Amino acid sequence: MSIYLHDIPLSQAQARLREALQDADLWRVLGTESIPLDENALGRVTAEPIWAKVSSPHYHASAMDGFAVRAVSTNDAMPSTPVRLWLGPEAQYVDTGDPLPEWANAVIPIENVESLDENDQITKDIRTPKSIRIRASVAPWSHVRPLGEDIVATQLVLPAGHILKPVDLGAIAASGHQEIKVSRKPKVAILPTGTELVPIGSDLKAGDILEYNSLVLAAQVKAMGGEPTRYPITKDDFDLICQHVQEAAQDHDLVLLNAGSSAGAEDFSSKVVEKLGTLLVHGVAVRPGHPVILGLLNRKSNEEIVSPRRHGDASSPPLVAPRNDMIPIVGVPGYPVSAALTIDIFVEPLIAKWLGRRPKELPTETAILTRKLVSPAGDDDFVRVVVGRVGEKLLAAPLSRGAGVITSLVQADGLALIPSGTQGIEAGEKIQVRLYRSRSDNILHRLA
Amino acid sequence: MSIYLHDIPLSQAQARLREALQDADLWRVLGTESIPLDENALGRVTAEPIWAKVSSPHYHASAMDGFAVRAVSTNDAMPSTPVRLWLGPEAQYVDTGDPLPEWANAVIPIENVESLDENDQITKDIRTPKSIRIRASVAPWSHVRPLGEDIVATQLVLPAGHILKPVDLGAIAASGHQEIKVSRKPKVAILPTGTELVPIGSDLKAGDILEYNSLVLAAQVKAMGGEPTRYPITKDDFDLICQHVQEAAQDHDLVLLNAGSSAGAEDFSSKVVEKLGTLLVHGVAVRPGHPVILGLLNRKSNEEIVSPRRHGDASSPPLVAPRNDMIPIVGVPGYPVSAALTIDIFVEPLIAKWLGRRPKELPTETAILTRKLVSPAGDDDFVRVVVGRVGEKLLAAPLSRGAGVITSLVQADGLALIPSGTQGIEAGEKIQVRLYRSRSDNILHRLA
Repeated sequence: MSIYLHDIPLSQAQARLREALQDADLWRVLGTESIPLDENALGRVTAEPIWAKVSSPHYHASAMDGFAVRAVSTNDAMPSTPVRLWLGPEAQYVDTGDPLPEWANAVIPIENVESLDENDQITKDIRTPKSIRIRASVAPWSHVRPLGEDIVATQLVLPAGHILKPVDLGAIAASGHQEIKVSRKPKVAILPTGTELVPIGSDLKAGDILEYNSLVLAAQVKAMGGEPTRYPITKDDFDLICQHVQEAAQDHDLVLLNAGSSAGAEDFSSKVVEKLGTLLVHGVAVRPGHPVILGLLNRKSNEEIVSPRRHGDASSPPLVAPRNDMIPIVGVPGYPVSAALTIDIFVEPLIAKWLGRRPKELPTETAILTRKLVSPAGDDDFVRVVVGRVGEKLLAAPLSRGAGVITSLVQADGLALIPSGTQGIEAGEKIQVRLYRSRSDNILHRLA
Repeated sequence: MSIYLHDIPLSQAQARLREALQDADLWRVLGTESIPLDENALGRVTAEPIWAKVSSPHYHASAMDGFAVRAVSTNDAMPSTPVRLWLGPEAQYVDTGDPLPEWANAVIPIENVESLDENDQITKDIRTPKSIRIRASVAPWSHVRPLGEDIVATQLVLPAGHILKPVDLGAIAASGHQEIKVSRKPKVAILPTGTELVPIGSDLKAGDILEYNSLVLAAQVKAMGGEPTRYPITKDDFDLICQHVQEAAQDHDLVLLNAGSSAGAEDFSSKVVEKLGTLLVHGVAVRPGHPVILGLLNRKSNEEIVSPRRHGDASSPPLVAPRNDMIPIVGVPGYPVSAALTIDIFVEPLIAKWLGRRPKELPTETAILTRKLVSPAGDDDFVRVVVGRVGEKLLAAPLSRGAGVITSLVQADGLALIPSGTQGIEAGEKIQVRLYRSRSDNILHRLA
C-alpha cells in the first residue's frame, strides 16, 4: 500500500500523457463533421482550409445609387462646360449593388447629376430622365465595387483550426458555401465518486459533501468546446467504479474520474486505471492539484462501428469507421480548486488538440506582489490573486490558498505562478500573473 | 423626397435612443427566469444577488486522512518523548472531508502517526489501531477545514449582473442552491429585405447578392447573449415589409431591419418606421455605417399575455404579465461591415442593459499608425487594423476601408478610431486601437 504519491514535474507529466496519446494515435483532430452554415456554427473550429467557390462581388457592382457611364465620356465635364449623356447608350440608372452594363466602367452618384426631360428641363423623375448633365469628370472605376473586391474565387478565406466568429460566417457565406466542415466535439464523461457525496440541493447532515465538481468540470469542458456528460454519483465501491468507468469509456473520448485520485483508503482511482488500462502518472508536482492521475483505458473490445449502408446502394460494402481501442482517463483531485485547475492544465490542451485549435493562453502581465508567499521548492505553485492598478504599478494580492475554497477562484483576476525551484517570493517583488479577465474587464472597470 | 441623410453625432444618436427607451420603460432588465443550476447556465447573467443558504463546509471537516484529536492532548509530544492517545476517547480515524467528533479540534495526518496494536506493537491496520503514538504536538485547528472556511451562510456569493463562469456555478451550488434566477434572453428578430438578395448557397447570376448579413447579425446577437430569429428574405415591397415588421414585433424585443436604411428609391426602412411607430434617428456620423435608423415600433395592440392558470388552482386569478406596447427597431445598413459595426455600436449596449450586465468594452492600446489615414472631419471613423509588435512598438496597419469588404473584419485585430474633429492621422502618429483579440491571442502568437 502506497501512502505517499511520487510527484513528477508538471512538464514531465504532460509529456508522458502526450507521448502515450501519440502512440495510441490519439494526439490529433478526433474527427470532422459537416454542419449547416448558421449561427450555431459560432465557436466551432474549421477542420480544413476554406477556399472561395465564388468571387464577391461576382460582377462589377455599383457602389452607389447613380448612373453607370463610360469614364472617358465624362472627361471634358467642367462646372462651366457641362457634358450631356443620353440615357441608354451613354448612361444607365443603377441602384447600389446593381451590375454595371458591359460597356460601363464608372458610376456617377445621383446627387452629382442633373436629370433632364425631353425638353432639356430638370425633371423630378431623377431616375428615369431622357438625359443627364454632369459638371465634373469621373475616373475609371469610380463608385464601382469591382469583381472580387472582397473575395476572389479560389482564394483562401480561412485556414484550418480557426475558431469561428460572427464575421467569419459571413465571409464563408460570401465565398459560396452553405455548409462547413468542422472538427467534431470531443465527448467527455464526468464521473463523480464518493460515498459521502450528495447531489446539489440536498438537505445536509454532518459529513455530507455537496457534489458540485461535476458541474464545474462539465461547464469547463463545454466552454472549451467539448460535449460533457455528467454521470450520477457512484459510491466508493471498486467494482462499481470499474463498471461505470468502462461503460463511460464505450461512447466517450475522455473519462474524468473525480475524486479518489489520492492515496487514501477509499482512493480507488489509480487501481481502477491499473485494472482497466495503463497508469501513466500518479501525482504531479503542482499546487493545488498534485494528486492527479493520468492513464489510458482499454475499451471492452476492439469492435468497429459500422455505419448504415447508403440508401439504395445495398451492394456496396458497409462504411466502416475504425474505432480507437483506447481512450485517456484523468483522475481529478477532489478539492474543487484542485479539480478546476487540473482541467485547465491537462484537459484544455487535449481538447484543443482534438479540436485542431491552438491551446488557450491567458494573457500574462508582470505585477508586484503585495505580501510574501512561501511555497514548496519542488512544486509549480499557482496562487490565485486579485489584480489592481495603482498609479503605474500593477499589484497582485494573494487570495486564500486553500484547495477547498472555490470562492477564491470566483474572486480571482488571475493566477500567479511560483515556479518549482523557488521557495517563496517576498512582498514587493515582481511576479508573472496569468490574467483570467482582459484588461478592460478587470483593471479599467475597477478604476471606473 | 430626401436624398441626403442628416447625420447626427454618434453620442447624440445613442442618447436619443436611450431616452426614448427610458420613456417607454424599456431601459432596464427585460425580465427574469429561474433555470436549473447546470452547465447550460454558463454565460447567463444573474438577475439578483446570490446569498448563501448554507455554509461550506457546513461542519468542521478533516482536511487530511488521519486522526482527530484534542490539540491540548498532544502538547508534550516530542521526538524523544512520544505521547500515546487511545482510540475512542482521545483519537478517532477520519478520512479527508469527514466531520470531526464534537470533542476534537485538530487532525494529525496519518503519515505522522505510529499505529499500535493491543501489544503496543506497530500494526499494519493503520486506520484501526488500539492506540496511536505521536512525536510532535499539533496546533488547534491544524489540518481542519473549519465550518464556513469557503462560504458562510447568508454571505453574498455573487452580485446581480454577473456573467456566470464555470467556477461560479460551483460556488452557487456550494452555497445551497439548485436553481438560479437569471435575466431572460432578449428575443431579436432579423429581417433581411431586398429584391436582389438570394439565400446562401444559391447559384448566382449578375445582380444577385448573397444574403448573409442576417447570419452575421444572428451570430452577433447570440454571442451577446440574445436569442436571434432569422426571417426569410422580404422583397422590396413597402406593404410586405410593414407586414413582416409588425408580425416580428409581436413576439420579439427588438427588430433589426436590413437593409433599406439609406435614402434611395427602394430604401423603405425609414418610411416603415414612420408608419409603424416613431423615427428617432436617420443617419449617424459614423463610418462605416452612417445610414443607421433608430426608432420605436408600436405593437399592434396593447393586449396582455395571459399565462396559463396554475395547475389545480382554477379559482385563482390568471397570472397577467404586463406587456410593453413599444419595442425598438434598428434599420441596419446593407454593407456587411457597416451592418456588423452597427450591431456592435447600437445593439450590444442595449442587450447588455436588457441582460443587466456591463456593456462589453474592448481592451484599448496605443499603437503607431503605419500609413497616413484621411477621414471626414465630421465623422467618428472606425478603421480596421492589423496589429503587430516590433521591438517595443505596437504597430497598427490599416486594412481595406471598403464597407463591403467583410474579409477585412475577418483579418482585423482591432479597430482604430479616428474621432470626429480629426481630418486624418499621419503615418508614425499614435492612434488608439480597440483590440478584438487579447494580447496573447494576437501579438504573442504572431511572434511565436
